Amino acid sequence: MRRPGPDFDAWLARTRAEVDTALDEHFRGLAPQLASHSRLAAAVQYSVQVGGKRLRPVLVLESCRASGGRATDALPAAVAIELVHTFSLIHDDLPAMDNDDLRRGRPTNHKVFGEGLAILAGDWLVTHAFAVLAAAPVAPELVPRLVRVLAEGTERMIAGQAADIENERRPSDAAVVQYIHLHKTAALLETCCRLGALCARASEEPTAAMARYGRHLGLAFQIMDDLLDVTSSTEQLGKRARKDAAAAKQTYPAAFGLESSAVQARREVEAALAALEPFGSRADRLRELAWYVIQRRS
Amino acid sequence: MRRPGPDFDAWLARTRAEVDTALDEHFRGLAPQLASHSRLAAAVQYSVQVGGKRLRPVLVLESCRASGGRATDALPAAVAIELVHTFSLIHDDLPAMDNDDLRRGRPTNHKVFGEGLAILAGDWLVTHAFAVLAAAPVAPELVPRLVRVLAEGTERMIAGQAADIENERRPSDAAVVQYIHLHKTAALLETCCRLGALCARASEEPTAAMARYGRHLGLAFQIMDDLLDVTSSTEQLGKRARKDAAAAKQTYPAAFGLESSAVQARREVEAALAALEPFGSRADRLRELAWYVIQRRS
Repeated sequence: MRRPGPDFDAWLARTRAEVDTALDEHFRGLAPQLASHSRLAAAVQYSVQVGGKRLRPVLVLESCRASGGRATDALPAAVAIELVHTFSLIHDDLPAMDNDDLRRGRPTNHKVFGEGLAILAGDWLVTHAFAVLAAAPVAPELVPRLVRVLAEGTERMIAGQAADIENERRPSDAAVVQYIHLHKTAALLETCCRLGALCARASEEPTAAMARYGRHLGLAFQIMDDLLDVTSSTEQLGKRARKDAAAAKQTYPAAFGLESSAVQARREVEAALAALEPFGSRADRLRELAWYVIQRRS
Repeated sequence: MRRPGPDFDAWLARTRAEVDTALDEHFRGLAPQLASHSRLAAAVQYSVQVGGKRLRPVLVLESCRASGGRATDALPAAVAIELVHTFSLIHDDLPAMDNDDLRRGRPTNHKVFGEGLAILAGDWLVTHAFAVLAAAPVAPELVPRLVRVLAEGTERMIAGQAADIENERRPSDAAVVQYIHLHKTAALLETCCRLGALCARASEEPTAAMARYGRHLGLAFQIMDDLLDVTSSTEQLGKRARKDAAAAKQTYPAAFGLESSAVQARREVEAALAALEPFGSRADRLRELAWYVIQRRS
């Protein structure tokens, strides 16, 4: 596995800053018309600005670059994917779903704004993601493909979350947990990479390879998430630890044990790296990101 | 005002049947991949199939036809708008919002499937609406415009719902109730007509006129909704009556009184009809629909 070079942290910080700037600029231009007579705008901005790793938009930008495009061409898609991700976090945290009070070390959206507004803030974000894609300064014939890919990825994520909450407190089932992880997490990371490749106008084969990288990376990411939930503290995570066991969730450690889960996470990273082979050294940052995902502590 | 001709009911029933057929076919093709390991597909289909007036998709089809297009060209947009409308009903009915147990005479989605799944069914529907537009067999350069119009209308609707729930139990305020009705209801009916005109490849001026018709029709529709809530029974409405007063909602009757509200509803219908003038007799069905909206009893 490729360990990050000495400049990886600086590169990651710089790319995150590009995403944050794009998000800030987007909402600055939008603020006046966003919403009157309610705290909807505040609720939306609260969760977008809480930040986080910005892993998904970074993946969009870098998969575009690795596919031969300019990262700036993928900025609208990167913004759109972060809005979808933020929507999913707000709704997943609701009392009717995972009932979380804490996210990225701060109170969750519904703890601050109430459940009704939190639901609407999520609704607004997922809707607005498509407005962002539709307004992207790309060739018009590209927009239908971007919209379809984002919608399909989001639908699969929602189906995964449905399977997640519907299979709580049921006996561990390897097929179910694999379905959940593939849909709830891997589908959106796959979508990031597919969007990036599309924004680079990559042809079918490299786009499919990039999607494969994202899917395996997403599986590795979610298995690590399961493992961190068991092995880390609430302080380390910035969200409640040990919550999977408390909610009797379907997880890799519950289905396969800790050791086997760690092996499978590593295997998924290897599959992700294999998908990058055709891209040569252009994909080095994506290789470093894979290392980053498997080594992360929160 | 133009009273419906003798064939209006038959025409409306036929157009609704076209919408229902398109929805059925769409979901039949989709069923296998919609969702495994959860009741998400069942929750989505439950609310889509409960039916209702299908006023919004009928408006899409007929505004396309009145703008010189073929109604079939607007079928994907009609399906998309009904999915967005269904999403909004599911989320509006949630306990954290309007807390309704009954919709179209049947238990609301969350009463049947639980709150978590109802939230996800709504999320899936709004997302899928954009997938439907992106896959529409129209000129590719039309798709970004359709997506943008649908997203903007949906965002405004969500902002209206936010203002609605945030201004409950506050003193009646004419500016607030006008904002709510303009956004929560009129924005989506305006969107229907704008989408229909765009699908007919209408130019800017007729598209704006059609949008104006939809906006005023939407305001008339919502004022009538407020009035019916006061004057009808639960059996007549198929949903709980007198719920606006119970929730201390911002409504036209509360802000302006019953009589003045009825006058304003009629005035909005007149403004809607005025917008149709450039379309001549081609817009007769839309005129009849305006009559239908103001005369409806549920």
